Amino acid sequence: MKKLVTLGELLLRFTPPGHLKLIQTETFEAIFGGAEANVAVSARNYGIESYYVTKLPAHDIGTAAINSLRKWGVGTDYIARGGERIGTYFFERGAGMRPAQIVYDRKHSSMAEAVPSDFDWDAIFEGKDWFHWSGITPALSPTARDICLAAVKAAKEHGVRVSVDLNYRGRMWTHEEAGEAMKELCRYSDVCITSDDDAEIFGLYPDDAPIPDGKPDLWNFQSVAQRLKDTFDFDEVAVMRRRTLTAGKGLWDAMLLDKDGFHWGKVLDIEIVDTIGCGDAFCGGFISAELLGYDAQKKLNFASAAGCLKHTVDGDFNMVSIDDVHSLMANSGSMEVKR
Amino acid sequence: MKKLVTLGELLLRFTPPGHLKLIQTETFEAIFGGAEANVAVSARNYGIESYYVTKLPAHDIGTAAINSLRKWGVGTDYIARGGERIGTYFFERGAGMRPAQIVYDRKHSSMAEAVPSDFDWDAIFEGKDWFHWSGITPALSPTARDICLAAVKAAKEHGVRVSVDLNYRGRMWTHEEAGEAMKELCRYSDVCITSDDDAEIFGLYPDDAPIPDGKPDLWNFQSVAQRLKDTFDFDEVAVMRRRTLTAGKGLWDAMLLDKDGFHWGKVLDIEIVDTIGCGDAFCGGFISAELLGYDAQKKLNFASAAGCLKHTVDGDFNMVSIDDVHSLMANSGSMEVKR
Amino acid sequence: MKKLVTLGELLLRFTPPGHLKLIQTETFEAIFGGAEANVAVSARNYGIESYYVTKLPAHDIGTAAINSLRKWGVGTDYIARGGERIGTYFFERGAGMRPAQIVYDRKHSSMAEAVPSDFDWDAIFEGKDWFHWSGITPALSPTARDICLAAVKAAKEHGVRVSVDLNYRGRMWTHEEAGEAMKELCRYSDVCITSDDDAEIFGLYPDDAPIPDGKPDLWNFQSVAQRLKDTFDFDEVAVMRRRTLTAGKGLWDAMLLDKDGFHWGKVLDIEIVDTIGCGDAFCGGFISAELLGYDAQKKLNFASAAGCLKHTVDGDFNMVSIDDVHSLMANSGSMEVKR
Amino acid sequence: MKKLVTLGELLLRFTPPGHLKLIQTETFEAIFGGAEANVAVSARNYGIESYYVTKLPAHDIGTAAINSLRKWGVGTDYIARGGERIGTYFFERGAGMRPAQIVYDRKHSSMAEAVPSDFDWDAIFEGKDWFHWSGITPALSPTARDICLAAVKAAKEHGVRVSVDLNYRGRMWTHEEAGEAMKELCRYSDVCITSDDDAEIFGLYPDDAPIPDGKPDLWNFQSVAQRLKDTFDFDEVAVMRRRTLTAGKGLWDAMLLDKDGFHWGKVLDIEIVDTIGCGDAFCGGFISAELLGYDAQKKLNFASAAGCLKHTVDGDFNMVSIDDVHSLMANSGSMEVKR
Amino acid sequence: MKKLVTLGELLLRFTPPGHLKLIQTETFEAIFGGAEANVAVSARNYGIESYYVTKLPAHDIGTAAINSLRKWGVGTDYIARGGERIGTYFFERGAGMRPAQIVYDRKHSSMAEAVPSDFDWDAIFEGKDWFHWSGITPALSPTARDICLAAVKAAKEHGVRVSVDLNYRGRMWTHEEAGEAMKELCRYSDVCITSDDDAEIFGLYPDDAPIPDGKPDLWNFQSVAQRLKDTFDFDEVAVMRRRTLTAGKGLWDAMLLDKDGFHWGKVLDIEIVDTIGCGDAFCGGFISAELLGYDAQKKLNFASAAGCLKHTVDGDFNMVSIDDVHSLMANSGSMEVKR
Amino acid sequence: MKKLVTLGELLLRFTPPGHLKLIQTETFEAIFGGAEANVAVSARNYGIESYYVTKLPAHDIGTAAINSLRKWGVGTDYIARGGERIGTYFFERGAGMRPAQIVYDRKHSSMAEAVPSDFDWDAIFEGKDWFHWSGITPALSPTARDICLAAVKAAKEHGVRVSVDLNYRGRMWTHEEAGEAMKELCRYSDVCITSDDDAEIFGLYPDDAPIPDGKPDLWNFQSVAQRLKDTFDFDEVAVMRRRTLTAGKGLWDAMLLDKDGFHWGKVLDIEIVDTIGCGDAFCGGFISAELLGYDAQKKLNFASAAGCLKHTVDGDFNMVSIDDVHSLMANSGSMEVKR
Repeated sequence: MKKLVTLGELLLRFTPPGHLKLIQTETFEAIFGGAEANVAVSARNYGIESYYVTKLPAHDIGTAAINSLRKWGVGTDYIARGGERIGTYFFERGAGMRPAQIVYDRKHSSMAEAVPSDFDWDAIFEGKDWFHWSGITPALSPTARDICLAAVKAAKEHGVRVSVDLNYRGRMWTHEEAGEAMKELCRYSDVCITSDDDAEIFGLYPDDAPIPDGKPDLWNFQSVAQRLKDTFDFDEVAVMRRRTLTAGKGLWDAMLLDKDGFHWGKVLDIEIVDTIGCGDAFCGGFISAELLGYDAQKKLNFASAAGCLKHTVDGDFNMVSIDDVHSLMANSGSMEVKR
Repeated sequence: MKKLVTLGELLLRFTPPGHLKLIQTETFEAIFGGAEANVAVSARNYGIESYYVTKLPAHDIGTAAINSLRKWGVGTDYIARGGERIGTYFFERGAGMRPAQIVYDRKHSSMAEAVPSDFDWDAIFEGKDWFHWSGITPALSPTARDICLAAVKAAKEHGVRVSVDLNYRGRMWTHEEAGEAMKELCRYSDVCITSDDDAEIFGLYPDDAPIPDGKPDLWNFQSVAQRLKDTFDFDEVAVMRRRTLTAGKGLWDAMLLDKDGFHWGKVLDIEIVDTIGCGDAFCGGFISAELLGYDAQKKLNFASAAGCLKHTVDGDFNMVSIDDVHSLMANSGSMEVKR
Repeated sequence: MKKLVTLGELLLRFTPPGHLKLIQTETFEAIFGGAEANVAVSARNYGIESYYVTKLPAHDIGTAAINSLRKWGVGTDYIARGGERIGTYFFERGAGMRPAQIVYDRKHSSMAEAVPSDFDWDAIFEGKDWFHWSGITPALSPTARDICLAAVKAAKEHGVRVSVDLNYRGRMWTHEEAGEAMKELCRYSDVCITSDDDAEIFGLYPDDAPIPDGKPDLWNFQSVAQRLKDTFDFDEVAVMRRRTLTAGKGLWDAMLLDKDGFHWGKVLDIEIVDTIGCGDAFCGGFISAELLGYDAQKKLNFASAAGCLKHTVDGDFNMVSIDDVHSLMANSGSMEVKR
Repeated sequence: MKKLVTLGELLLRFTPPGHLKLIQTETFEAIFGGAEANVAVSARNYGIESYYVTKLPAHDIGTAAINSLRKWGVGTDYIARGGERIGTYFFERGAGMRPAQIVYDRKHSSMAEAVPSDFDWDAIFEGKDWFHWSGITPALSPTARDICLAAVKAAKEHGVRVSVDLNYRGRMWTHEEAGEAMKELCRYSDVCITSDDDAEIFGLYPDDAPIPDGKPDLWNFQSVAQRLKDTFDFDEVAVMRRRTLTAGKGLWDAMLLDKDGFHWGKVLDIEIVDTIGCGDAFCGGFISAELLGYDAQKKLNFASAAGCLKHTVDGDFNMVSIDDVHSLMANSGSMEVKR
Repeated sequence: MKKLVTLGELLLRFTPPGHLKLIQTETFEAIFGGAEANVAVSARNYGIESYYVTKLPAHDIGTAAINSLRKWGVGTDYIARGGERIGTYFFERGAGMRPAQIVYDRKHSSMAEAVPSDFDWDAIFEGKDWFHWSGITPALSPTARDICLAAVKAAKEHGVRVSVDLNYRGRMWTHEEAGEAMKELCRYSDVCITSDDDAEIFGLYPDDAPIPDGKPDLWNFQSVAQRLKDTFDFDEVAVMRRRTLTAGKGLWDAMLLDKDGFHWGKVLDIEIVDTIGCGDAFCGGFISAELLGYDAQKKLNFASAAGCLKHTVDGDFNMVSIDDVHSLMANSGSMEVKR
Repeated sequence: MKKLVTLGELLLRFTPPGHLKLIQTETFEAIFGGAEANVAVSARNYGIESYYVTKLPAHDIGTAAINSLRKWGVGTDYIARGGERIGTYFFERGAGMRPAQIVYDRKHSSMAEAVPSDFDWDAIFEGKDWFHWSGITPALSPTARDICLAAVKAAKEHGVRVSVDLNYRGRMWTHEEAGEAMKELCRYSDVCITSDDDAEIFGLYPDDAPIPDGKPDLWNFQSVAQRLKDTFDFDEVAVMRRRTLTAGKGLWDAMLLDKDGFHWGKVLDIEIVDTIGCGDAFCGGFISAELLGYDAQKKLNFASAAGCLKHTVDGDFNMVSIDDVHSLMANSGSMEVKR
C-alpha cells in the first residue's frame, strides 16, 4: 500500500438536525472533520495507508476526535496531545433560497497554538509517499505556518511528493496575507489543487479575463491555471468548480492541467445533503488515483465523481468505497436500488 | 422602535417527524403558532417592538405557549389567561404528489370563547403604531368577532394604523358569512393583504375574468385589487400568490397597489420545508418594511423575500434576520455557504 | 367485502435515519414488509378484506411482525409459527447520484424453511375471491416453491382468481432458474403484473426489439406483453415502469393489455421518500380496483396513482386511503395543503 | 377462546421524552389508551378474545386510534365513528420528589357526546362471556351514563358476567355525583374492582376506621370491602393498593373478598417507568385469570403480578405475555437476563 | 413585583443523551445556563421581576442564548453584545458508581474579556431591590473581577440588597486567590450563601473541627458560619449541603444563621436527573422567599425544597412553579400523579 | 506495550431505546460487541496493544463491525472476511421486576462457519504476550471448536499466556457437551475466569455444597475453585458474582485463587444501565492488570472495579479509562461531579 500523510486542524462540528436553524435548535449532531483529515479518510477508503498529523487536547473530547479517525483506519500515531481546546464550529444547513451558514469558534485551539517541536517530521515521513496540506493551516497562526514550512521542507528532503489545496478562508486572513504566506510554501509543493476562486490570492488573473460576480469563468481560467503552473513550477494544477443553484442542488465539474496540457471532466448534477468536505473529497480522490497509477483523465474523473458523491454523505468524511466511485464513473443513468 | 400589536388565536401544532403520515407516527414535534402571532414574531426579528393579544388557558401548556412568544421577544403582557383549552391541529407534511394535510381540533378554545371584556384596548393601544388582525379571528365565534370589532374601532380612535390579512378559511365559515363579517371590519382597516383567492369572499371578481381551476389569474387580478381598494377605501392592497408544483416546490410572487398604482415583485422559486406561516411572513415583512420607512417597491420586495425564506424554516415563526432578507433581495444567484 | 389472500415472506427491514449510510449509522428504523404483505395492506386500505399467509418464528420479533399486519387490518389467522428466524435486510436510502442499496440477510428464515404441510389451503381459500403471489416466494427454497404450487392449484380448485407479480430477484436465482419455475406456476394464474424488465425471465423478447442498457423499451414492450399473454393464457398483463433520474426523483407509468387490447397510463413525476414497495402498491391498487368493479382504464389509473403515492410514504406499506388515490387521479395540478 | 367486551373512552396521550417537563418539551410521544381499552389489550395478551366499544372521530387520528387497538388484536368492529374530536391529555412523568402530573383536554370528545343509539348492544353481546366498564365512562356526560346503563342492562339480559372498576376521577365529578350514578350501575355488576380510595364515593367507611392522610388503611379496609360486597351483592370485591414513595418507586399489593372470605396478595416492590394503566392491568389480569379458570388465590396473584409488571412498561397497554406474568409469580429473586 | 439583578457568565452546555459518555456520543443536547442566570430564572418563576447582566457575542448562538432567557421571562436589556465567543462545556451524566464529569472550554469568552465600561450600573440598579453575584465571576479574569467590584459598589450606593454565592471552582483559581479576591467583594454583600465546602477559601475553619475526607461536618459547621457572619458582617449566612451516594441519588439539607441564630432544614432524599444548578436553585429560592416576605424558617424550607426539586429537572434552569415548591414543602408522603 | 490477542464471534446487537420492549419498538440502537472483543477493547483502554480475531462477511455491515473495533484502537489485521452473515441478537433492557431478555439470531454466521484455515496462528501470535478465549466460541460449531483448539495449541507453542472465560451459554449447548469440549481446551489454558455458576459444566461441585436456587454460594465456592485449579492445573482461578435484585440494581463481587491462596474483593453496589459485557469487563481488567504488573489483590480490585463500572456504560464495550477504574478503587464515597 502506498502511504499518505496529511497535516491540519481537526474541528468539532455542531449541526442542528434536519433543516433547523442555529437559532432554534436544542440538539446538535457532533462530528469531527477538517480539510486535511477528510483527505486522509478518503484515501484510506480507496486503499491508501494514510496518516493524519495534528495536535489535540488531552481530554475525552480530544480522544473522541482521535477515535473518529481510527474508526476509518487513519493512522493517528503522530498526533500530539496537549493545549487548551479543540476548534469548533456551528453549521446550519441551508434550504432552497436560504444558504447554509457557519459560525466559527476555532481560535486558541491546540493546533493553532502548536509549535514546530510538537512534530518530528523525519520520523513521520520515513517510508511515506505523499504529503498533503492546505491553505487553512498557515492561516491558523504564525506557529502553524512555521509547522507547515518545516513539513514541506522535510517532505522534499525525504523525496515525498507534496500536494496543496489552496483552500482560502476569508474569515482567517486577507488575500494579501494568504498570497504572501502561500507563495513560500507552494515552492515546496508539486501538485496544486484549487477551487475556481481560491487562486485569487496570487493575483494571477489576466487583465482581460471577465470576472462575473467577482468570480473568474472556468473557461477563461485556463490562463490562470497555466500561470499558476508556471509561477510555482507545479507538475499538475487541478481546478474544481461548484455552482450552487439553491442550497440543495447545483453543478460540479473540474479541469486538470499537466505536462500534456488540459483535461476536462463532465459537468455533474449535485444534490446536497452535506456541503462540507466536497473539495477535500476531490483532493482525496485525486491523490489516491495518482497513487493507484490512474492516467490523467481517469484521475480527473475519479476525483470528480468522488467529490460529487460526497455531497450526498452526511458529515465531513466521504464514506464511499472505491467501487461506489467507479460505479458513478461508469453510470449509464439509472439510479435504481442496488440489491 | 415602532410598536405593533396583533390579535388572534394561538394554536398548538403537532407535526410528525420528517415525511411520516399522521396515521403512522408515534411522536409529534410540538410548536405554537398562529397567523397573527407569526406576524408579531417576524416584526420583532426586524426590529419592531411587537405585542400579541390572545387568551390562553391557565395551565402549563398555556404558559409554554406564552414562553414560546417571549423567547422571540414578543410582548405578552396583554394576554388573558383562562378558559378551557388551547386550540390544536395535526399537520402532515406532504411529499411529491402527496399534498400536506391538516386535521383541526381547535373548537372550544379559550380564544374562541373569550369575550370583549377580556381585553382593555385603550391600555393596549396606548403609544402603539400599528394593529394587525386577520380573517381567522372573526371566524372563531361571534364573541371573537365582537372582540375584533372592538379592537379595530379602538385602534382607529388611538390613531393606530390598521392592516388586515383576509385569510379566508373554508372549514370555519362560508364565503357569504365571511364576506358579511369582514365587510364591517375592513371599513376600519387601512391596509389589506390577501392571497390571490381569499378576496373571493367579497364577490369582487369582474364578470369577464377567467378563473382557471377556480382561481383568478394574477394578471387579471389587477381589477380585483382595484375594486378592493375602492370598495373599502384601503390605502394599500398587497396580493401574494403561491403556486405549488409538488408538495416540496413551487413559485411565489406578489403585487402591490397603492396611491401610485401597481408595483410588481419578482417570481421566486420556493423549496418547501414548512408550508405554514408563509403568508404571515409576507405580512410581517410588509408591515415592518413600512414601519422602517421603505418605499413601495422595497416594501414589496422585502415582504416577498421574507415570505420566500419562510418556506425553508421549520415551524410557524419566520426565524430569519433582517440581514437574511436583505441578502436574498440582493442575491445574485450563488447559494454558497456563508462562512 | 371482497376477500383477498396473499402469500409470501415477511422481512424485517433496518433503515438508517435520513440519508445516513449503512456504514455510519448507529440506529435503525425497523419496519416489517414484504412484497405480498404490502399488497394485502394496500387492499385493506381500499376496503378489501385481506389475509396474509406466511411462517414466522414463535418469539417476540415474530409476534411484532404479526402485530404490524394486524395494525393495518390484515387477517393473520393463517400465519404459521415456528422455524428459526425472520429474514432481514439493511436498506440504505440513496441521495442524488448515490443510489440506494440493500444488504440482504434473509436465508434460513422460517418461511424459506416452511413446508407445504404448514398451510391448509382448503381452509384458507374457503369463501375467498382472489389469491396473489409473486416470484420471490418460489425463489426462497424448493419447499417454498412447493408451497406456491400447492397454493395456486388449490386456488384454482376453489374458483379463486389468481394474480402473479413476476418480481424477479437476481440475487436469489438466475433468469433460467426463475423462468423454469415460474412457467409451471404461471399456468395456474389469471393475471400477470410485471415491471418492464422482470419479464426477461421467460426469454420472450422479440429478436428485433432494441434493449438499451439491457432493458427493453416500453413501446417495444407491446409485443412482449402480447407474447406473455398468449404463452400463459393470461386474462390481463399489466406492466409498470420506473425510470429513476436521481436517487430522489424519476418518472413512473404503466400499461395494461387485456382482451380489449392495450390501455395506457399517464407518465407521473415521482419524488422518492421510500423506494420500496412501490410495485406492490401498484399490484394492490390493481387488484383492489378490479375487485371494486372499475373498468380497465380506471383500474390502470388507480393502480398507477397508488404506486406513485407510495414513493412518498416511509416504510413498505402504502398507508394512503382510497380518497387519496382518487384525489391524485383527479388532481388538476395544485399541491396546496388539504385543510 | 372466552370473549370479553369493554366500553369506554379512548384518549390520545402526549408525553414529553424522558423526564422533561410539559413546560420545556418540544416533542411528544403520542400513544392511545384508556382504562377499559387497556383492560381489553391485557386480556388479549393472555389469550382472551376481546372487543372494545367506543366512539371515535372519522379522521386519520381516529383511524390511528383504531389501528393501535387492532395492532394488539383487540376487536374494533363495534366502534362507532363520528363526532368532533378524540379526548387528549398531556402527561408529565415525575422524578424523585417531583410527582407526575396530567393536564386534561378531553371535553367535547366523540365518546362524551355519543348517544345510546350509537351502539347495538344486542349484537355486541351475542356470544360474549364478560363485560367490563369503569366509573370514568358515566362521568363523561349524561349521555355516556345512559350508554353505560344500556350496556350493563343488556349484558345482564345476555347472561354476560359484568365487572366494574370504580375508577373515581375527582376532576370529572364529586364523590356525591359519582356515588349517585354508580349506585344504579353497580346493581347490574357482579364483580367490583377498586383501588383503596375510590370506594369513598359510596361513603361506606366505618365510623371507627382511621383514615391517615385521607386514605383508609388496607387492613381496616376489610369492613369496607365487606360493606361494598353486601350493599351491591357483588360476587367478588378486589382491592388494589399502590403506595408511591418517590415518583419512581413504591409498593403494590392487593386483596380479594369472595364467597370464601378474604385472600391476600404479596407486597411487591415497584419501579415506575410508566404510572398509567397499572390498575387497568390489574383488572385485565383479574378478569383473564377468572376466564382461564384460575382459583381465587391464583387470580389475585396473577392480577397483582400483571399490575406490578405494567409499571415497567411504557405506554398505557400492558405489553407483557402470560408467560411473563407467570414468571414473576414464580420468581425466586433473580432478575438476570433471560437469554 | 420586587426586582432582582444578577451578573455572571452564561455558558452553552453540551450533554450527551441519557447515560452516554462524552467519548461515545454522536449528538448533544444543547442548553444555556450559568450560576447567576439560573438564579434569575428561578426568581422569575416565583413572581420576582428579574434581570440578567452578561456579555455575549453578536452572532446567532449569542442571540439564541438571549432567547433562552427571554423565554423564561428574564430581562435581557442590560446584556452587552460583542467579543469572541460564548463559553462552553461538555457535561457527562454519571450513573451508579460512575460520577458525572465536566470538560470545560470556557476561556476567552465574551464575558471573561468584558470590561467595566460594558455595563452602566447606575442605569441597571435604578429601581431595583436585590443584586446577586457569585464567586465564579471574579474567577473569570481580572477585568471580570473589576466588573464585580463596580457592581457591588454601585448596588450599595443605590441601596440595593446584595447576596453572594461563594461558588468556589478549583479549576479556575486556588483557595488563596479566591480568598483574597472574595474578601474585598464580600465586604459589599449582605447575604452569604455557600455550600459546605466553598467556605474553605477563607480559612475560617476552627482548629478543632474534624474534616473527614477533606470536608467539614455540617454540625461542626456552625462555628464556621458564625465566623463567616462575624468576619464580613453578613446579615445572613445560608449553608446548603449535598451528599451524593451514587451518581443518581443522595441527601440534601441546609441551615441558616441570621440575627436570631441558627435555623435547620429537613434532610431530603434526592434523585438526580440533572446535578447542575441545584445550588443556584437554592439561591433563587432563598432570595425570592425573602423578597416575598417569608420568615426565616419558611425561607430556608422554601429554598431547600426548590433545590431538591431542581435535581429532577433536566437543564440548568429550575422550571418549577411556586406551587410545586409549596407542594413539596407541605408534602405528606404520597408522590401519586397530580391529575 | 504488552500485546493481547482475543478470538471470538462479533455480534450485531439491536436494542430498543430506553425501556421499550422488543414488541413495541420501531427503532433500534445498533452496536457491535462480543465477549472476547469486549475484552480486547477494555485492554486497549488500559494501555495494552490488543488484537481481535474473527471472521466477518465482506459487505458494509461487516466493515462497520471492523470500524467499531478500530475506533477503540483494537487491531483488526487478522480478521478474515467472507461467509454469509454476522450474528445478531435483540436485547430488551429490563426494568424493576421485569428482567432483561435476549432473542438470538446468530446461527449460520461467518464465524460459526469459519474453518481453521481462515487463520494463520503462527503469524498472529508472533511477538504477542497473552491470548484470551471464552466458552462461547467452541459452542458455535464443530469448526469453531477446531479453530479454538488450533489457537490454544499455537499459543502454547509461542509461549503466549492463555486465559479462558468459561462463559457457558445454555441456549447453545448442554452442560455435558460444554464440559466435554472445554476440558480439552482448558488443558492449554493458564488462567481461568468464571462466573459463579458457569463452572457447573465440569461437575466439580462438592457433594456437600448447598446450591440455593440452583446456584452455589460463593463462600462454599472455595472448594470448587480449588478443584478447578487442581483439575486443569490453572495458575489462577478468578470468580466473579453478580446478584441482580431488580433489573436495575444489584451486588457485585469477586474472588481470586492463585498460588498464594484466596484473595477477596469488596462487595460493590451496581446500578445497571447496561447488563451486557460486565463479565468481559472483569476479564479485560484482570488480564490488563496482570500485564501491567499489579499484585494479586490489586489485580482483583482493578478487575472488579472495571466490571462494576461497565454496568453504567451503554453498549458492550467498557469505555472507561484506567484513571476511572483507579478512581473507583480509591473512592471514599462521594459521587460528586468531576469538574
